[in-house]
Amino acid sequence: MTRSDGRTATDLRPVTIERGWSAQAEGSALISFGNTKVLCTASFTNGVPRWLKGKGTGWVTAEYSMLPRSTNDRMDRESVKGKIGGRTHEISRLIGRSLRAVVDMKALGENTIVIDCDVLQADGGTRTAAITGAYIALADSLEWGREKGFIGKNSKPLIDSVAAVSVGIVKGEPLLDLAYVEDVKAETDMNVVVTGRGLFVEVQGTAEGAPFDRDELNALLDLALGGTADLTAMQVASLAS
Amino acid sequence: MTRSDGRTATDLRPVTIERGWSAQAEGSALISFGNTKVLCTASFTNGVPRWLKGKGTGWVTAEYSMLPRSTNDRMDRESVKGKIGGRTHEISRLIGRSLRAVVDMKALGENTIVIDCDVLQADGGTRTAAITGAYIALADSLEWGREKGFIGKNSKPLIDSVAAVSVGIVKGEPLLDLAYVEDVKAETDMNVVVTGRGLFVEVQGTAEGAPFDRDELNALLDLALGGTADLTAMQVASLAS
Amino acid sequence: MTRSDGRTATDLRPVTIERGWSAQAEGSALISFGNTKVLCTASFTNGVPRWLKGKGTGWVTAEYSMLPRSTNDRMDRESVKGKIGGRTHEISRLIGRSLRAVVDMKALGENTIVIDCDVLQADGGTRTAAITGAYIALADSLEWGREKGFIGKNSKPLIDSVAAVSVGIVKGEPLLDLAYVEDVKAETDMNVVVTGRGLFVEVQGTAEGAPFDRDELNALLDLALGGTADLTAMQVASLAS
Amino acid sequence: MTRSDGRTATDLRPVTIERGWSAQAEGSALISFGNTKVLCTASFTNGVPRWLKGKGTGWVTAEYSMLPRSTNDRMDRESVKGKIGGRTHEISRLIGRSLRAVVDMKALGENTIVIDCDVLQADGGTRTAAITGAYIALADSLEWGREKGFIGKNSKPLIDSVAAVSVGIVKGEPLLDLAYVEDVKAETDMNVVVTGRGLFVEVQGTAEGAPFDRDELNALLDLALGGTADLTAMQVASLAS
Amino acid sequence: MTRSDGRTATDLRPVTIERGWSAQAEGSALISFGNTKVLCTASFTNGVPRWLKGKGTGWVTAEYSMLPRSTNDRMDRESVKGKIGGRTHEISRLIGRSLRAVVDMKALGENTIVIDCDVLQADGGTRTAAITGAYIALADSLEWGREKGFIGKNSKPLIDSVAAVSVGIVKGEPLLDLAYVEDVKAETDMNVVVTGRGLFVEVQGTAEGAPFDRDELNALLDLALGGTADLTAMQVASLAS
Amino acid sequence: MTRSDGRTATDLRPVTIERGWSAQAEGSALISFGNTKVLCTASFTNGVPRWLKGKGTGWVTAEYSMLPRSTNDRMDRESVKGKIGGRTHEISRLIGRSLRAVVDMKALGENTIVIDCDVLQADGGTRTAAITGAYIALADSLEWGREKGFIGKNSKPLIDSVAAVSVGIVKGEPLLDLAYVEDVKAETDMNVVVTGRGLFVEVQGTAEGAPFDRDELNALLDLALGGTADLTAMQVASLAS
Repeated sequence: MTRSDGRTATDLRPVTIERGWSAQAEGSALISFGNTKVLCTASFTNGVPRWLKGKGTGWVTAEYSMLPRSTNDRMDRESVKGKIGGRTHEISRLIGRSLRAVVDMKALGENTIVIDCDVLQADGGTRTAAITGAYIALADSLEWGREKGFIGKNSKPLIDSVAAVSVGIVKGEPLLDLAYVEDVKAETDMNVVVTGRGLFVEVQGTAEGAPFDRDELNALLDLALGGTADLTAMQVASLAS
Repeated sequence: MTRSDGRTATDLRPVTIERGWSAQAEGSALISFGNTKVLCTASFTNGVPRWLKGKGTGWVTAEYSMLPRSTNDRMDRESVKGKIGGRTHEISRLIGRSLRAVVDMKALGENTIVIDCDVLQADGGTRTAAITGAYIALADSLEWGREKGFIGKNSKPLIDSVAAVSVGIVKGEPLLDLAYVEDVKAETDMNVVVTGRGLFVEVQGTAEGAPFDRDELNALLDLALGGTADLTAMQVASLAS
Repeated sequence: MTRSDGRTATDLRPVTIERGWSAQAEGSALISFGNTKVLCTASFTNGVPRWLKGKGTGWVTAEYSMLPRSTNDRMDRESVKGKIGGRTHEISRLIGRSLRAVVDMKALGENTIVIDCDVLQADGGTRTAAITGAYIALADSLEWGREKGFIGKNSKPLIDSVAAVSVGIVKGEPLLDLAYVEDVKAETDMNVVVTGRGLFVEVQGTAEGAPFDRDELNALLDLALGGTADLTAMQVASLAS
Repeated sequence: MTRSDGRTATDLRPVTIERGWSAQAEGSALISFGNTKVLCTASFTNGVPRWLKGKGTGWVTAEYSMLPRSTNDRMDRESVKGKIGGRTHEISRLIGRSLRAVVDMKALGENTIVIDCDVLQADGGTRTAAITGAYIALADSLEWGREKGFIGKNSKPLIDSVAAVSVGIVKGEPLLDLAYVEDVKAETDMNVVVTGRGLFVEVQGTAEGAPFDRDELNALLDLALGGTADLTAMQVASLAS
Repeated sequence: MTRSDGRTATDLRPVTIERGWSAQAEGSALISFGNTKVLCTASFTNGVPRWLKGKGTGWVTAEYSMLPRSTNDRMDRESVKGKIGGRTHEISRLIGRSLRAVVDMKALGENTIVIDCDVLQADGGTRTAAITGAYIALADSLEWGREKGFIGKNSKPLIDSVAAVSVGIVKGEPLLDLAYVEDVKAETDMNVVVTGRGLFVEVQGTAEGAPFDRDELNALLDLALGGTADLTAMQVASLAS
Repeated sequence: MTRSDGRTATDLRPVTIERGWSAQAEGSALISFGNTKVLCTASFTNGVPRWLKGKGTGWVTAEYSMLPRSTNDRMDRESVKGKIGGRTHEISRLIGRSLRAVVDMKALGENTIVIDCDVLQADGGTRTAAITGAYIALADSLEWGREKGFIGKNSKPLIDSVAAVSVGIVKGEPLLDLAYVEDVKAETDMNVVVTGRGLFVEVQGTAEGAPFDRDELNALLDLALGGTADLTAMQVASLAS
């Protein structure tokens, strides 16, 4: 089966990473997975929230949001509605957990990093693009913290890298990195977060239509591991440039 | 390894289901997984939200909440704080998706069922107990709808049953149905929602400490399928009584 | 006149008190007045809010809430609506005042007790059941505080007990402890909070239909004093068990 | 005992009613009980809220609020805090109930009256002044509705008048119409709402310090009936002018 | 052209200032510009917000609000809606900036003044009446602070006075101090805040209908300077009385 | 005086307009004034809000927001805080008014355009860049509406163009288009919105430090008219490309 954009089942969309897009943030990346564009910025602060003070460990958290017209139909702003929706909460929490999985909080020391992932344009896979781009912003902000002396010279707060990709079953076929038109008709949708060493940080599979069996689950995981390996390579290249 | 409460790795905690606990709801169950107690009520309404009107399909949704002193330390009420936290949103959405996976919305017709899952006492596994109990409340409310004539005599809105269990890796060992003391020290935590026929509805695995590999993932899935098969049997028995 | 449930005008509904229902709270009671069921938990904390610090006195407060399907028709959750309604506020304040009336704050010392009263099932008289059950939870939490050494051995923070009952005039006749079907047709509705010694803490009478005269007011107060005397006896028995 | 402002126990403070204070409202009164000043306006609208449509009955409701610097210490605005406090809710509800008790909703027809009671200056008794002044605004707005033809010529929506006063026990002595300095040291505080014919609409007695006995309750009710009879006479005079 | 209320283009409406209207505030004025009536109160507190502590400077801020029935049609309360509208925010900020422009924060010392401007009746020009009246309340509260010793004897926190007026172009003609009926048909609307010495603090001109040219702008500024000079004279007279 | 970035007092910063940046919006522009970058998108909807239905006129409104890390220090998200700040409200209203000033609502017909202006990076002048870019998005969305047939072929909803610039007095010297470092030390700050024909839509001048006199006001207006003329030329060029 050829997909509507000409990809094979195991192809990622074209991925670009504009590292250092922001003139102000301590780390940043404008990442695109096809038409999905997410601006990820890292804000490094010396010090930690009150509940962590004096414990010698740092904190990494994330906030995800979509611009109101990042989508085909304009959404109301959550700031105007006065509350954050369940989906936004859920994705913010997922990004935060994914990043914390590759940070040694003791090595970070009493420093806080907030990663903002703002979706400028959405075409499926916004949360996986966000995680993949957020890692770049995180890595650069840690380097900034080291240069400023907030992190010790020999400290290694990054214990691994992390990337994410969506997979799904569309018309019975497992596909990698779903675009929006594929996502809406997927029977099963899965987001997989994987470290640079190939270990799982998160596996979130959901039957949107029919429930899935063990073989389908395995096929999706195979696809995802292939995709995240490619994304890891791009992250390495970006950070080396 | 024997667990602190004497269970083996593959044992569920004692499960009880008080079907029809509520005198008012169209379906209800007070379910306990050990010390975790969740009151599940189903509210059946003839009619659907505006955005579904005239489409001939029904709607099933869920809301999860914890009493402020269901936990060891009292939590502030979300009604007093004026907003719902990310975790509450996330679990409400999970329960709703899990139930919708076993309902044929065409067969339900233009009827709405809201399932409330209120945690009266929490000792780990509140979301999995909630899903398992919510299915009982759902099934009874569908029967109520049939008796009242809102659902056709030959309609079969329930296409399968659904149950859920948590699994996790504690000190390197995969365990079934984690109690709170186990949950807080788990390296990996997974919630698995499975139908009566043994198909997956949701798989949500999270590395709390170290990321996990493919073998560990498989071991956890094996454990979960065993647990949900047992829970399915208890659901069948409860609904037959 | 015989009432729909067979009671005479001066009968309470069957009252049960399950003391210590909660495995986690410092004091708790699941109280029922007929089909009205309220779970009351007391959370004891050493220390007081900032505005009381250093004054040597404690604080007792209460929060009341109804589960969304405790009623015949499902209500929206106040946490979802993002604000607490006037009725909820009013009852929470009433419960708090009623309990504080029997506590010597100096003897309590710099400790805080929060009483949560969550209505699991509502059939009239939820606020009076809540006050009556909250007293049990309060008493047990004070005992817990004494055992833990937060309250001095010779301190007597409880200066009296407190119970409450509703009374009303239905079709011209004064009735004790109104069930929901009676409450909705009452011309006058009154909630009376009385100490174990028979003194008034609160008298809240409202003309729902026609205003009432002095004789009617006196008849309602007579009924209420009878009912609270019975409830006081049940509280004594419960705490003695 | 002579009170700090020279009154005897049974004296009201000087009461003034500036009827028609507002150039815009359909009915209005600026009422003062001593230094307590409340601006009451009635907004008459032809039509009723959706839930009452087609039932042939009207609706009367009230909102109470205090200016931030109506008190000795400035309070935060509830609009800035983003939520209404329990006390505000409670008093708004009390005023609404008190007014509805003297309105025949059938005779009002499908019209809505909203009474706003804004406390410009507070020195105790703001809710009782509000009720007493709100009645004047209500009466004038009904007359306006009749003139405009929204209320039939022979309809008599007002079935009685209503006034309110506070009473309390200070240092063991029952006093009428407490000023703020008296209110803060009262052992018992009671607000009594009485119709022009001398019937009770609301009796709300609260033990602030020591609980009160039946004799004290009776003494307070006697005082209150005297005070409301005087207020009723002033209302009659104001409406006749 | 004679205006509907008989004024010429360069006439202010009748202005009255009731200085010291409030028995509680440290400074206050009930100001009227024709039918527009605004109650301005100043609350003086020794101390400053946390972010200013230890800097030796004070803080002046303002809050503006309209009573729900200050207008022809009743508005919903912002406290009931749970959020403050853009217009309210904007005017509160304008009043605060206008007052701060004439205060030497060093001379004020670590004291805070909050000015509340509550519109009791609205007929156009509420923000300009508010600024003009707020200055009186501010001046008196500074005097209070000096008497209490919070401000040094030789400190001169007031460096100038401030007043404001609206101007606009109606049917091509520039008019001073627009009443509501003029305001709604103005092509251009401008609010001008001017010090006692005749310097501009704020110039806010808005084309409601057609954009305006440089000549029209100049004509409006001429009018405004005339009006604020008159208002300054009235402020001087009020403070001298 | 040469400015820190080498400009003269009458120079704009480098301005770029990426027209059609968004793949989804009916009109869009990513505009930069130096380091200030604002993404403006126009959402065109056939139909109008309920209060305008059947009047034959359209509606144009705007929402402004800043990404949390568009600034040097990260700001909390307004969606997380649950309310929109005064500054955000004020600027959203300003942008909406500025755009409506150049739209003939009758010619637009019953269509609604919402312009979102999201600041991706902030370095002073975000509101003026937003207005200038929003005009491009607006113009393209109107063209889209004409192509889709929602606007008549001969209708001319755009009656002029609109652009905006900030001016200010820094160390006594009037400067055009202030960067952030200039803005914070400006004695007077003015935002001026001007149509393509050179007429004023908004003039908002504020004394941040010392009040300003008539001559200074005139010098600022001269500067602003020069700057907006240049911006108008760039808008014409962008729309012609």
